[in-house]
Amino acid sequence: MAIERVDCWKAHGGTQGVYRHDSRATGTPMTFSVFVPEHGEGQLLPVLWYLSGLTCTHANVTEKGEYRAACAEHGVIFVAPDSSPRGDDVADDDGYDLGQGAGFYVDATQAPWTPHYNMWSYVSDELCQLVSAHFPIDLHAQGISGHSMGGHGALTLALRQPDRFRSVSAFAPIANPSEVPWGRKALGTYLGSDEKTWRKHDTVALLEDGATCPEMLVDIGTDDPFYDEQLKPASLEAACAKAGQPLTLRRQSGYDHSYYFISSFMADHVRWHAERLKG
Amino acid sequence: MAIERVDCWKAHGGTQGVYRHDSRATGTPMTFSVFVPEHGEGQLLPVLWYLSGLTCTHANVTEKGEYRAACAEHGVIFVAPDSSPRGDDVADDDGYDLGQGAGFYVDATQAPWTPHYNMWSYVSDELCQLVSAHFPIDLHAQGISGHSMGGHGALTLALRQPDRFRSVSAFAPIANPSEVPWGRKALGTYLGSDEKTWRKHDTVALLEDGATCPEMLVDIGTDDPFYDEQLKPASLEAACAKAGQPLTLRRQSGYDHSYYFISSFMADHVRWHAERLKG
Repeated sequence: MAIERVDCWKAHGGTQGVYRHDSRATGTPMTFSVFVPEHGEGQLLPVLWYLSGLTCTHANVTEKGEYRAACAEHGVIFVAPDSSPRGDDVADDDGYDLGQGAGFYVDATQAPWTPHYNMWSYVSDELCQLVSAHFPIDLHAQGISGHSMGGHGALTLALRQPDRFRSVSAFAPIANPSEVPWGRKALGTYLGSDEKTWRKHDTVALLEDGATCPEMLVDIGTDDPFYDEQLKPASLEAACAKAGQPLTLRRQSGYDHSYYFISSFMADHVRWHAERLKG
Repeated sequence: MAIERVDCWKAHGGTQGVYRHDSRATGTPMTFSVFVPEHGEGQLLPVLWYLSGLTCTHANVTEKGEYRAACAEHGVIFVAPDSSPRGDDVADDDGYDLGQGAGFYVDATQAPWTPHYNMWSYVSDELCQLVSAHFPIDLHAQGISGHSMGGHGALTLALRQPDRFRSVSAFAPIANPSEVPWGRKALGTYLGSDEKTWRKHDTVALLEDGATCPEMLVDIGTDDPFYDEQLKPASLEAACAKAGQPLTLRRQSGYDHSYYFISSFMADHVRWHAERLKG
């Protein structure tokens, strides 16, 4: 499980790196970033996985996410994978919401997506093994977060791997993809028309089907242009209430869907995870 | 003095905007960004001007500078102008270190640069008038900072407008441009071969010629690839010592010239300015 270091900077007392490896899951080279704060020799640190939204690579949150100061303060490693396989021989679509940059954290079952679009296997299994082999991660102290499509990914991973993740949060997640245009297009394309197969990739459906996870922290901006049509925070709220799933949902007045929103609350999310991962 | 709002986001409780206007000084449209933290009705706030380095626009620091949390905490307005005039009819050069993106904060006296390359007049006069007409700035509480070429701009402005700026800092400034390749190329091109005319745009020369300003705070990374060849912190240190100019020069171990370096110390610079501007 070799990795290649693409870039590396000292930042906030720690090391911000960008790495590339040949992924078994996707059959492509994959790029991800890792921030490791200053720490003692031999010390293992909690890790916060961050899944990105539509059109994003690892670079968006790495450059604009403003997580490093908080990760340095709390001693948390931050890992940001890409949001899909990429490459000239990887299937793609003209839409920004399908294909490269829009993996939706599922394993595709439909052609022409099947050979490479296995982002579920990638983030739920392969990347964790790879990163823990190369970085000082405490596998008993893992949290996960993400934005929009990546918030969907974070919540579904937390619900399906409750023994792995001790904390979960999301920024403006696509909470009920089966019922919104982005999700119906992507899940229908990658998984086919049998909507039963979509349920394990839909936070609201997973809650209806009995999955639970640690308390969820979710922030969403009241001026998010995708608030009702794509994100459906009220459906998440209702499903959590019905399932008895603890949820802290904060409607942040005046914020939109951008990294200006995410970076405003990132330090708070990192602190929230750190409290749970170090407890 | 009309301005057009190009973009606007809520961020860290305040407002991050991007604005455009027709500049008298440069004869071109100019774009700049302003962050205004949450504040009381009618309240005037201290302002920190930030001048960017080679190749940068307002966008680099706006996206990657990580200043908003600190500006929100301390109640400081942050203004980031572009680093040169731009446009199809504006003289340019194939080099990244001359022409568009490389204004060096001087008023050009040489053709073909004269009509538009008047960044000194722009940042020393016009932009201040413009911004103070549209934003709640306390003109008696102005600080200035910048990076690399913009650090050069910040230090020279502070030395030549000591009544305007009550605080000054810089990240990896070009401290002695008359003696380094970047500076000799730019000053020679914009100001001509008479090196006497360069002195008022050279921090070390200004100190030699008797200029002083409030205590300077300067951070520079020990792994900065331009450390000795272009930045010359030792020359700044010697000139300050000889002139009796108070200087806090911090050689930050392992940091380079990137925004990973800048963002690591930005909050500390904002706090440092706020203490002096609000005192």
